[in-house]
Amino acid sequence: MSAPRPQAEGELAAAPVPAPAPRRHSGELGSTQASQRLLAYSDALLSIIATVMILPVAHTKIHPDQKLGESVQQLLLTKIAVYLMTFLIVTVAWTAHVRLFQVIVLIDDVLALLNLACMMLITFLPYTFSLMASFPGIPFGIFMFSTCAVVIGLIQAVIVAYGFYHPYLLNHQIQVSENQAFYKHRILQIILRGPVLCFLAAIFSFFFFPMSYVLLGLVIFLPHITRLIIWCKNKTIGPKEDEESHRLEAFTFYLNDPLSKERVEAFSDGVYAIVATLLILDICEDNVPDSKEVKDKFHDRLTEALSEYGPNFLAYFASFVTTGLLWFVHHSLFLYITKATRFMGLLNTFSLAFIGGLPLAYQLTSEFAEKSPNEIEAIQVSCVITFFASIFQFAIWITALFHERETLHPLVRYGGKEHAFMFAKLALYPCVSLGAFFLTCLLSKFSTAIFHIMQIVVPFAFMALRILVKISLAIMKSMLSLSRRKNVVLDEEETCLSPAETLS
Amino acid sequence: MSAPRPQAEGELAAAPVPAPAPRRHSGELGSTQASQRLLAYSDALLSIIATVMILPVAHTKIHPDQKLGESVQQLLLTKIAVYLMTFLIVTVAWTAHVRLFQVIVLIDDVLALLNLACMMLITFLPYTFSLMASFPGIPFGIFMFSTCAVVIGLIQAVIVAYGFYHPYLLNHQIQVSENQAFYKHRILQIILRGPVLCFLAAIFSFFFFPMSYVLLGLVIFLPHITRLIIWCKNKTIGPKEDEESHRLEAFTFYLNDPLSKERVEAFSDGVYAIVATLLILDICEDNVPDSKEVKDKFHDRLTEALSEYGPNFLAYFASFVTTGLLWFVHHSLFLYITKATRFMGLLNTFSLAFIGGLPLAYQLTSEFAEKSPNEIEAIQVSCVITFFASIFQFAIWITALFHERETLHPLVRYGGKEHAFMFAKLALYPCVSLGAFFLTCLLSKFSTAIFHIMQIVVPFAFMALRILVKISLAIMKSMLSLSRRKNVVLDEEETCLSPAETLS
Repeated sequence: MSAPRPQAEGELAAAPVPAPAPRRHSGELGSTQASQRLLAYSDALLSIIATVMILPVAHTKIHPDQKLGESVQQLLLTKIAVYLMTFLIVTVAWTAHVRLFQVIVLIDDVLALLNLACMMLITFLPYTFSLMASFPGIPFGIFMFSTCAVVIGLIQAVIVAYGFYHPYLLNHQIQVSENQAFYKHRILQIILRGPVLCFLAAIFSFFFFPMSYVLLGLVIFLPHITRLIIWCKNKTIGPKEDEESHRLEAFTFYLNDPLSKERVEAFSDGVYAIVATLLILDICEDNVPDSKEVKDKFHDRLTEALSEYGPNFLAYFASFVTTGLLWFVHHSLFLYITKATRFMGLLNTFSLAFIGGLPLAYQLTSEFAEKSPNEIEAIQVSCVITFFASIFQFAIWITALFHERETLHPLVRYGGKEHAFMFAKLALYPCVSLGAFFLTCLLSKFSTAIFHIMQIVVPFAFMALRILVKISLAIMKSMLSLSRRKNVVLDEEETCLSPAETLS
Repeated sequence: MSAPRPQAEGELAAAPVPAPAPRRHSGELGSTQASQRLLAYSDALLSIIATVMILPVAHTKIHPDQKLGESVQQLLLTKIAVYLMTFLIVTVAWTAHVRLFQVIVLIDDVLALLNLACMMLITFLPYTFSLMASFPGIPFGIFMFSTCAVVIGLIQAVIVAYGFYHPYLLNHQIQVSENQAFYKHRILQIILRGPVLCFLAAIFSFFFFPMSYVLLGLVIFLPHITRLIIWCKNKTIGPKEDEESHRLEAFTFYLNDPLSKERVEAFSDGVYAIVATLLILDICEDNVPDSKEVKDKFHDRLTEALSEYGPNFLAYFASFVTTGLLWFVHHSLFLYITKATRFMGLLNTFSLAFIGGLPLAYQLTSEFAEKSPNEIEAIQVSCVITFFASIFQFAIWITALFHERETLHPLVRYGGKEHAFMFAKLALYPCVSLGAFFLTCLLSKFSTAIFHIMQIVVPFAFMALRILVKISLAIMKSMLSLSRRKNVVLDEEETCLSPAETLS
């Protein structure tokens, strides 16, 4: 769903039609191509496959009289496990893919076909998770998964080997580097780390398969554990000098720019887009009245028949608004992020995993709208999902603020003109969802209708946010002046925090 | 699923990490942003919503003993109509969206929120089509659709008005132009043409609703009909001189670059990606064996239980390979296309509409694999879908060849080095699907298994294609020399057609 676009110009003098850049070399390198569209397509595939497994969760039929508390525990737990495992493993595969194509920047037909083969196996992984979740006692599911992962690793290793055999496909920095072998070793190490663990898991699945699950968990968290250990070691005993200098070259290339910001955005867009569009499927399949019923019961008055589905439409629009606005917040945030560190990428993954849960929230609130005993629980689940999706977005910003010189645009750094406004934008959804959650505890009359209307009203809050931020800053200022603090301090505050511009 | 990426460099000296361009203006224009990511997200949403309505078609349960011929006619026809209408209308909406954001190149928060509101209504359109298809005799469905379309048009008009009220958001060419009012008038005309027709359709729906359907059809084909009439008029009575000069400025801006190639690619990627990933959903929901059955019937031997689903897995991989390779052909084609004319865009839409039908092909061939009476019909439907998807790709190329100076890269023009190879690439799928179709007529033993194995073998044909093209060119050459034609002609042929490069 994406294509190479010309880089942001940031100037008013935008050319009306960007001239297409020549993408091919002539002569002997004639079959190489720029890799943007391949990467965009891969991002689309990976983000959809990561998210789409929420559908079996959302479509689990829960009997309206059944207590939601139990049914969530019994029916949904395995399916949610499949969804989360798929999401996390696909994210790991995506990270390896990003790394791989940071090294190989040009492609040809062979690489394109190898990449498609890789994608085919990755899209098959959810099935192996379904087997694991349905038959937790039979090791065949995890064996199948491990085999797929090993084959994916081998294909990616072939891609690396092919790339280093045709060095004109490589990143310029590696191409001119004297120790290409070191880079090759390093990238193979990053790519094959997971598959080697999976190979062990496949072997263990024959005689002691709980060990396989441990190894599987290790695949997901290994990169972050390694980082944590290195970080702790550096904090406690200080960095090793000789090792540091040895790894300097690798450092500048891999670790300083851990994830390509463009691909993080592309992957996130995919998740938000698929979540926003999955909702209409349910509406179209479940909420079109039966034509026979309309004839007999409503005497061909379709509007009357449709009015029964009113709560579902409300739920649909409310869910779309929530998804759309969370994308909007993500978009605003990443406009100002200049570099996505590995930890920010992890937080983004967690946020997206909860975004992927929004179809479940829609399903619950629209199914239990009719004063069923589960109505309050359904709203609470929705609030929790929205809260975690938005609080992880907030956490990305907080993390970025810790290294604001490298990661943030000057305008939103502490003291920047947009700082307070960005803070308000990111804090809005956590506050609203938390507020709604506590309202469900306090008010016994709280209903899904009120909840959905709350969701639909939020965009107006966003539109008024700039004004609200200004007013609250003015109030803060006047309170400060009432307490008669020194003028110097006041002036400092003013220059630091007030967003001096308006929407116009 | 996409994000702004740095434009293709086409040089070996690719910078390792593209420096993020500053996307914001300081000072009074502080709240404006580049629109790339908004457009990428909109493309993702629109392409998914265009394609996703194939799912209700594919999930229609057909009784295995029922004759497919009848059931296709009765059960599927309304759903296929919904799918095609959705696809075409969403494409029209997408075209208007492309035009709109060729005029407005920078966005701010208000425009982003307005655009999301627009997207929300567009994603709701499939529901109105479901109503129309289920209740063809009740005009409420078309009234609802028309109302949505009018509201979408109004929101887009507000976006235009907002853009022209804040001219720094506009395209540079319009910004410096002296008759901005003319441009405003022109873009409003393009955007409101559809909604005005829909408004009429809404009025007609109260007293004579067949007229509404006629107007609806007009919305889809009006731009192309207008073009055709102008083209015919120019051919027969010659272009009007004064009108031509009056429209010159508009011409250079709107008609010379009818659709942004990047957005055509982005929209196509979305369709291919969603089709490739929808398949796994079916596999995960239908082909995980029941745990009780495995215990009783297979004594916990999961592999035996799974072997029953063998044909489904084969069908899955075959369908993924077909989708992936059709994307690969599309990708190869658009690498060499420098400009996408309006007619090429239309052909691309038709191709994508059939690509969207591939999940149906998968469903049919995997459901009727077990020697059912419908097996041959299922294969034939699959062949027809694949054939049309690929023949429209081929037609894009043929159309491009007619104006090859403007639309094609020199390498693939007639006589270019890659011409023959591109021809072979594009002709492969039409030939294979046509061949398979005729095989089903000739051989009584042709089965889905053979069909799927054929599909899986095709990538190897692609890999060997360069060699095959070379061999066939050599054979052509030797045949020509056998017939002892003049050496001069021979030499010409040689320079014209032989692809002089190899994969290495």
